[in-house]
Amino acid sequence: MSKSGTTTPARATIRTVAADAGVSVAAVSKVLRNAYGVSDGLRDKVQKSIEKLDYRPSTAARGMRGRTYTVGVLLVELRNPFLPSVIDGVQRTLGKANYKALMGVGEARAKIEQSLIDSMVDMRMDGLLLVAPRLSGDRLARHAQRLPMVVIGHHEPTAALFDTVNSDDRRGARIAVEALLTRGHKDVHMISMPEENAAQNVYREREYGYRDAMVAAGLADRIRFWRQKERFAQPDGTIDALLESPDRPPAVFCWSDIAAVELINKAAARGINVPEDLAIIGYDDTPTAALPLIGLSSMDQHGTQIGELAAAALLSRIEGRTVPEHRLIEPGLILRRST
Amino acid sequence: MSKSGTTTPARATIRTVAADAGVSVAAVSKVLRNAYGVSDGLRDKVQKSIEKLDYRPSTAARGMRGRTYTVGVLLVELRNPFLPSVIDGVQRTLGKANYKALMGVGEARAKIEQSLIDSMVDMRMDGLLLVAPRLSGDRLARHAQRLPMVVIGHHEPTAALFDTVNSDDRRGARIAVEALLTRGHKDVHMISMPEENAAQNVYREREYGYRDAMVAAGLADRIRFWRQKERFAQPDGTIDALLESPDRPPAVFCWSDIAAVELINKAAARGINVPEDLAIIGYDDTPTAALPLIGLSSMDQHGTQIGELAAAALLSRIEGRTVPEHRLIEPGLILRRST
Repeated sequence: MSKSGTTTPARATIRTVAADAGVSVAAVSKVLRNAYGVSDGLRDKVQKSIEKLDYRPSTAARGMRGRTYTVGVLLVELRNPFLPSVIDGVQRTLGKANYKALMGVGEARAKIEQSLIDSMVDMRMDGLLLVAPRLSGDRLARHAQRLPMVVIGHHEPTAALFDTVNSDDRRGARIAVEALLTRGHKDVHMISMPEENAAQNVYREREYGYRDAMVAAGLADRIRFWRQKERFAQPDGTIDALLESPDRPPAVFCWSDIAAVELINKAAARGINVPEDLAIIGYDDTPTAALPLIGLSSMDQHGTQIGELAAAALLSRIEGRTVPEHRLIEPGLILRRST
Repeated sequence: MSKSGTTTPARATIRTVAADAGVSVAAVSKVLRNAYGVSDGLRDKVQKSIEKLDYRPSTAARGMRGRTYTVGVLLVELRNPFLPSVIDGVQRTLGKANYKALMGVGEARAKIEQSLIDSMVDMRMDGLLLVAPRLSGDRLARHAQRLPMVVIGHHEPTAALFDTVNSDDRRGARIAVEALLTRGHKDVHMISMPEENAAQNVYREREYGYRDAMVAAGLADRIRFWRQKERFAQPDGTIDALLESPDRPPAVFCWSDIAAVELINKAAARGINVPEDLAIIGYDDTPTAALPLIGLSSMDQHGTQIGELAAAALLSRIEGRTVPEHRLIEPGLILRRST
């Protein structure tokens, strides 16, 4: 238990920051808002004074403009190894504008998502960034009427009230499947998620891409899905069934590295040679895929770039933009030993 | 753009919940607070009415008791694969008491941590749960004077103002190193983190445990540390240097699976046989360690249990407990192919 022996300096205000930096209060405000037309020199000067005086815009600015300089980020779950790179990009872009992210985990359940979003609104966060939400488009539109919103991992290119930033999942899947077809495989199967969940349309787009490639190759009759239950990082028997099936395919495209890493490991444990007897391509290019002992080919979504673009879009919405923006990022195939 | 065609039902209150469940308002309040002496029958009844009426205690209760039913969780970084199991435990325990977690990522920088904690306090969160904070004990004590606080991954067994829940890191490290010594290895080295960072004392405890085991075996003169730079998930050359050293040891204990997974993969890439020429034990028993293609021995910290205990401690602090509690959880060694 420590006695308060140090004297607390008076709390910094936007005025003391302006005085310290030798600029106007309006100039400091511009830097804080990350407004257009701020020179690098001005930004540097003001940032130095902010750090020196330990100024906290989050509190002080509230009185001034009603902002909390905080953005609510809703994540579907923490185990998806695609998330850290997205969040890196989000935090980097928000940090430059003196914004912070506070995150909630929806556990892929619409009810929990709803409750977290309500809390974020109640806490007067300045905007919402939703990653792979399970809420329907209608629900999303309703939230977007309450505050600025950008959605990642949910395809809705005609949404009028919010922005979307996504990997071009359909194109990515087609590129991956074509890489397997080029190697002479005909029975290319896909491991995907349940058919009934329409809200999560990212892997639906990947299914379209798989179909596109198979149909274009004249292999429409060889299309076959193996559907996992929606239990993240919890093996559910689907992959064991595939490996033990008399119809085991020579090549499999997986909706996510989560499935592909399980597949390549269980194949090895059964003595199945990868890629000779089983070629595999995953999705997300997670750190695990890149390990030399795993060597999994995978689609890189460029998660950091998606996070940066989404955060920048949210900041410009907070600044007043209302015309919707829908961005698709071109993914890139990373080939390793598994193909 | 959808017109609001549906009529909004009147918002549920604690009174309508009580009426629906056929119990008193005080009884609903008890369930919401997760108070002692609530029967399972009462809890079930009230929970059903809450779900049916879509009642949101976060808003409604604020007027009643000044609570937001929200807890701020500060994470050191998102890439540490130990975190998801801790957060699972936290969310499960908070959810039962109708609390939610909102998380910030401190990026292992005290300044960002400070700013996130300030936001959590400003937003009137009911308590703080810090995971492996970089702030010093004094700073932590100051925050604990502002609101109920529990810390995970920071050893401070005499802290008077907050609780701690930790793995017994010293004992875990000793058990791991003894397992390597039992196999006849004498030059057991340890990969750890930088020496100067005193705030993060989890791996310091693991260093003590390593020393304990070496000294007890009469091998004090064989103690040797390889210290990584503090760059999460960013290889920094330390492990390459170890593998290429003429003094390459036959056995290595790693402060974390983050290091051990890099070590086992780089050893394989160099054609070094594990465990014959290099035995490895990691820490955290991450999902990657358990993959058949990795087969890494590792200490299981029981992260879910740590998360559950920490959340329960925070809830009881929010309910008014002030006597500090400091818990150490016994870790367990999981042996796989790498030893």
